[in-house]
Amino acid sequence: MGRWQPDATGRLQQAALELYAERGYEQTTVAEISERAGLTERTFFRHFADKREVLFRGSEELQQLIVDAVDGAPASATPIEAIAVGLQAAGAIFDPDRRPHSLTRQSVIDANPGLQERELIKLARLAAALADALRRRGVQDPAAGLTAETGIAVFRVAFEHWLRHDSDQHFEDSVREAIAELRTVAAS
Amino acid sequence: MGRWQPDATGRLQQAALELYAERGYEQTTVAEISERAGLTERTFFRHFADKREVLFRGSEELQQLIVDAVDGAPASATPIEAIAVGLQAAGAIFDPDRRPHSLTRQSVIDANPGLQERELIKLARLAAALADALRRRGVQDPAAGLTAETGIAVFRVAFEHWLRHDSDQHFEDSVREAIAELRTVAAS
Repeated sequence: MGRWQPDATGRLQQAALELYAERGYEQTTVAEISERAGLTERTFFRHFADKREVLFRGSEELQQLIVDAVDGAPASATPIEAIAVGLQAAGAIFDPDRRPHSLTRQSVIDANPGLQERELIKLARLAAALADALRRRGVQDPAAGLTAETGIAVFRVAFEHWLRHDSDQHFEDSVREAIAELRTVAAS
Repeated sequence: MGRWQPDATGRLQQAALELYAERGYEQTTVAEISERAGLTERTFFRHFADKREVLFRGSEELQQLIVDAVDGAPASATPIEAIAVGLQAAGAIFDPDRRPHSLTRQSVIDANPGLQERELIKLARLAAALADALRRRGVQDPAAGLTAETGIAVFRVAFEHWLRHDSDQHFEDSVREAIAELRTVAAS
């Protein structure tokens, strides 16, 4: 692994994303990604299991970040407030500088049904983890499951809003706005 | 096709579900399903494309039923009320007599990651169709998308509740209760 790892990972991710966007995900080979990054295939496979993992690396960390924040939310927080605290913590990953990367990644995923399925699975896992986190806070079912699933709805809308926004929208604000919208929607 | 079609479809579905529950979905062959139903493989393939379709036949009709009901909801209904009207229409399919079938089907799906993915895709499609239905009612984004995704959360919780309930719980009531729960959750 050694001293080149962080740089190699970043170069491979950048190269992969460029190629997926230019040629399509299916059409891109690991050989081409490695070549564009100026590295060998052998190096690629030291960093990623396959070309799909380049897109989904970080999913576990994202989930852990959100769940840890739910666990750490004040005891006085209601279930939906605890979920909001959790989702806002994702702002540490989705910062404005990351938007171009996230936009390209999303366009690649939107163009490929297999990758879309993978995203759905990721969100279903996050929903299950959020429900467990709420149960640890003493929230009972069906409120735990419903609040977690509703949290995923909020996350999707907030992420989409953050992604499409022109300026330096902060992900935390997108979450706050989506929660406010949820309150309006549910109350009506 | 001819006069035997409805009966053959039902016999094949029943035989497939029994075998999936007994032996596992992966381990069951079309030959075994056909044999248990007292029919030929050729007949199976006149009714179903493959053994997975036995479990997902009806998804399109379910979606259409729900979307039509949203379209037909009173103009005065708020977005979430229109979604509730739509989801309650699914009670025409999820009647108490169907519970044993639905329970077996769910246990088969819960035991198989590939089938779970298929269910996720089905619900993602339903979410997109509900958002479109709301937009046809003049609901703008992000409210349309958020209400549709929230509707899926309500659907999942209502379906799970209906499925696990001991008595003659009506699906319509499960939806009503899940919507009430959503209001509590979102308001807090």
